[in-house]
Amino acid sequence: MRMYDLIMEKRNGGKLSEEEIRWMIESYTSGEIPDYQMAAMMMAVYFRGMDEEETRNLTIAMAESGERLDLSAINGVKVDKHSTGGVGDKTSLALIPLVASCGIPVAKMSGRGLGHTGGTIDKLESFRGFSTGISTETFINNVNRIGIAIMGQTANLALADKKLYALRDVTATVDNLSLIASSIMSKKLAAGADAIVLDVKTGSGAFMKTQEDAFALAREMVKIGKNAGKYTTALVTDMDQPLGLAVGNALEVKEAIDTLKGEGPEDFTELVKELGSRMLIAGQKAETINQAEEMLARSIAEGKALDKLADFVEAQGGSREEVYHPELLPMAGIQEEICSEQEGYISHIQCDEIGICSLILGGGRETKESPIDLSVGLVLGKKAGDYVKKGEVLAVLHANSREKAAEAKARFLKAYTFSNSPCEKRKLILGSVE
Amino acid sequence: MRMYDLIMEKRNGGKLSEEEIRWMIESYTSGEIPDYQMAAMMMAVYFRGMDEEETRNLTIAMAESGERLDLSAINGVKVDKHSTGGVGDKTSLALIPLVASCGIPVAKMSGRGLGHTGGTIDKLESFRGFSTGISTETFINNVNRIGIAIMGQTANLALADKKLYALRDVTATVDNLSLIASSIMSKKLAAGADAIVLDVKTGSGAFMKTQEDAFALAREMVKIGKNAGKYTTALVTDMDQPLGLAVGNALEVKEAIDTLKGEGPEDFTELVKELGSRMLIAGQKAETINQAEEMLARSIAEGKALDKLADFVEAQGGSREEVYHPELLPMAGIQEEICSEQEGYISHIQCDEIGICSLILGGGRETKESPIDLSVGLVLGKKAGDYVKKGEVLAVLHANSREKAAEAKARFLKAYTFSNSPCEKRKLILGSVE
Repeated sequence: MRMYDLIMEKRNGGKLSEEEIRWMIESYTSGEIPDYQMAAMMMAVYFRGMDEEETRNLTIAMAESGERLDLSAINGVKVDKHSTGGVGDKTSLALIPLVASCGIPVAKMSGRGLGHTGGTIDKLESFRGFSTGISTETFINNVNRIGIAIMGQTANLALADKKLYALRDVTATVDNLSLIASSIMSKKLAAGADAIVLDVKTGSGAFMKTQEDAFALAREMVKIGKNAGKYTTALVTDMDQPLGLAVGNALEVKEAIDTLKGEGPEDFTELVKELGSRMLIAGQKAETINQAEEMLARSIAEGKALDKLADFVEAQGGSREEVYHPELLPMAGIQEEICSEQEGYISHIQCDEIGICSLILGGGRETKESPIDLSVGLVLGKKAGDYVKKGEVLAVLHANSREKAAEAKARFLKAYTFSNSPCEKRKLILGSVE
Repeated sequence: MRMYDLIMEKRNGGKLSEEEIRWMIESYTSGEIPDYQMAAMMMAVYFRGMDEEETRNLTIAMAESGERLDLSAINGVKVDKHSTGGVGDKTSLALIPLVASCGIPVAKMSGRGLGHTGGTIDKLESFRGFSTGISTETFINNVNRIGIAIMGQTANLALADKKLYALRDVTATVDNLSLIASSIMSKKLAAGADAIVLDVKTGSGAFMKTQEDAFALAREMVKIGKNAGKYTTALVTDMDQPLGLAVGNALEVKEAIDTLKGEGPEDFTELVKELGSRMLIAGQKAETINQAEEMLARSIAEGKALDKLADFVEAQGGSREEVYHPELLPMAGIQEEICSEQEGYISHIQCDEIGICSLILGGGRETKESPIDLSVGLVLGKKAGDYVKKGEVLAVLHANSREKAAEAKARFLKAYTFSNSPCEKRKLILGSVE
């Protein structure tokens, strides 16, 4: 087999066979196929696309290109969850303990963030002593014992995807649905769960700017999951304004704790319940959405969800004390109110700009090596559709530097657009793909 | 400037500015832009194309990326000629002495061949002692003194094109008109002539298989040449059967000598006259085709064209004796007739297969390092449209190995197709682009 022939085939609109895709991914991972040939192939795929079968074969080949997690020693149906990410997306922090408290075993690999705030692992490190550097044995044992464990993503998971993504990132070949979907799903398949629940975000704070693209990506990923023999379902949800109210690592942990106590923001609570009920169905703990929602509500009301978070934090080296007393979590030295300079209905919040405010305050990473300040961020007081008077508090900044606070504040104010006439509140759940 | 942005721009159907193209070619030549980004760009160009302005800018940037020949010390209008190549294409061997004998100074850089037979330089080396390894000073002096000099193409000419072509060759991005045209024309521009006459070949023995593609390439190259301020004109000519009768290095030299004596094959003679008259016009030695053709005919009749070849061969270390006595040129040990196994009209000759016969006999190079046997090849007895009886001679093989001769013969016979009804002779000159 020659890579030249495969490039030519795809360039001319042909279809790559399972054998060809497998050979290509193996040879690229081993370094036998050079980057320049793969770059030409990726651009050809950008223009010609890949059909359902090619996309599935690519995903499976990438999933098998590195280490694969064997979760067979864990009892029950293992359900994984993935979000395409956005501003204030602390969903896993609340969702995982909640579904685990209802009997779903969650064995999750997670990443550190490169963006507006840290990733799930960074956020969890707000609990002093918490660590994801656990052995695979402890990982499996913890899931069987308390129902949850989270590990840092090993460097060897879906090796081909890692190498390919880095190449696509510098050759303008990222934005192709098949390639985006196979990149995400290859890691999910390698991570070994039996079922996958996806949260595809759309809007000014998300990678997919339009609903159309978000639904297309959701459909693509659900198809891949099903074709690979996994129960897979997706929600498409709004990310045109931050999710919930808190943006920033420890601030988001606090909001997740509030939510597990039944005191979270309305939109975030809704999302956690919607995803949670789907995870219960995927994990065969409930048969209908109604039944699942009742289970979730009971777990929250009885305090089991919060206890599960405490068990989990403790099992990975943190203190359960901080779960029940979130005021012990890292706290920034400066709290500064941002007051509205206008009166009116909030018609739009430029969501990625709110994320950049968090980054400016030190809550995110600009490069892989950047340190992260877990205490900083902002908590919104008003969201799209709300009526605001002049001088009313739009948000509270949590900062450790006056200069950074001033810079973030100026940027924050420009992200809000006002209207004289009432605007509808944004719908959070835009649809599902089963 | 970032290559990423340029790839994105072209991928999305945008136009690259002169500054962007110049920066891209300079940075690629210097190694600052890696092959993988250029490969993605080339594939994007394959799908999106380049307009006239982009193609001109690319060509000029490549022409300026390496050494450029300064021909200003040569008197008169320097006319260069380029053929896209084919089987039995010995045109330069006859054409150059012919136009030089009419007063056109020819200062030509030529290449060695990688294909069915050698290139012009290999063919010229059939004259014992002939060398293209001359200094630039001798090169210029020889043109001023006798009207012709041929140098080997320096490694530094159009450096970017060399690097880019090697990349395109392994990433399935060769066949794009703008890229093919700019590759050829960048070398022509760097070689410094004032006017360029192009011979674009089409058919089963040419790179351009269809007339449509050949005319498109001719138009593209003529546009580039004119946009770069050079007088440029092109003929589109048939290469659906070998040109003339001889295929093989020394055999083609002999045919060129015959042609300079007025005894060449009809089709080859026609091509030399057509291209020659255009070169005389380009070089301002004639005003009309009729006038030019008369000059060429006179030069042949008076023996001046043949004398010019002798002067040229002598000036570069060969013996003029061999020009007047071509029986002294390398000759193969075996001459074997290939007789027709069928009767009928020759309806088609699979031209590239005839080339492969020459390669099998040892007349061409499979890799850059292959030695070449200058004596071998074949001389056709019949061409498309001819009527052949069973047992009549189709060609004479010139070989130095019985095994190779047998292999070439078997292949040769399969390349001819016969018909019971008369077929028209193929037209050689298919049109021109001015």
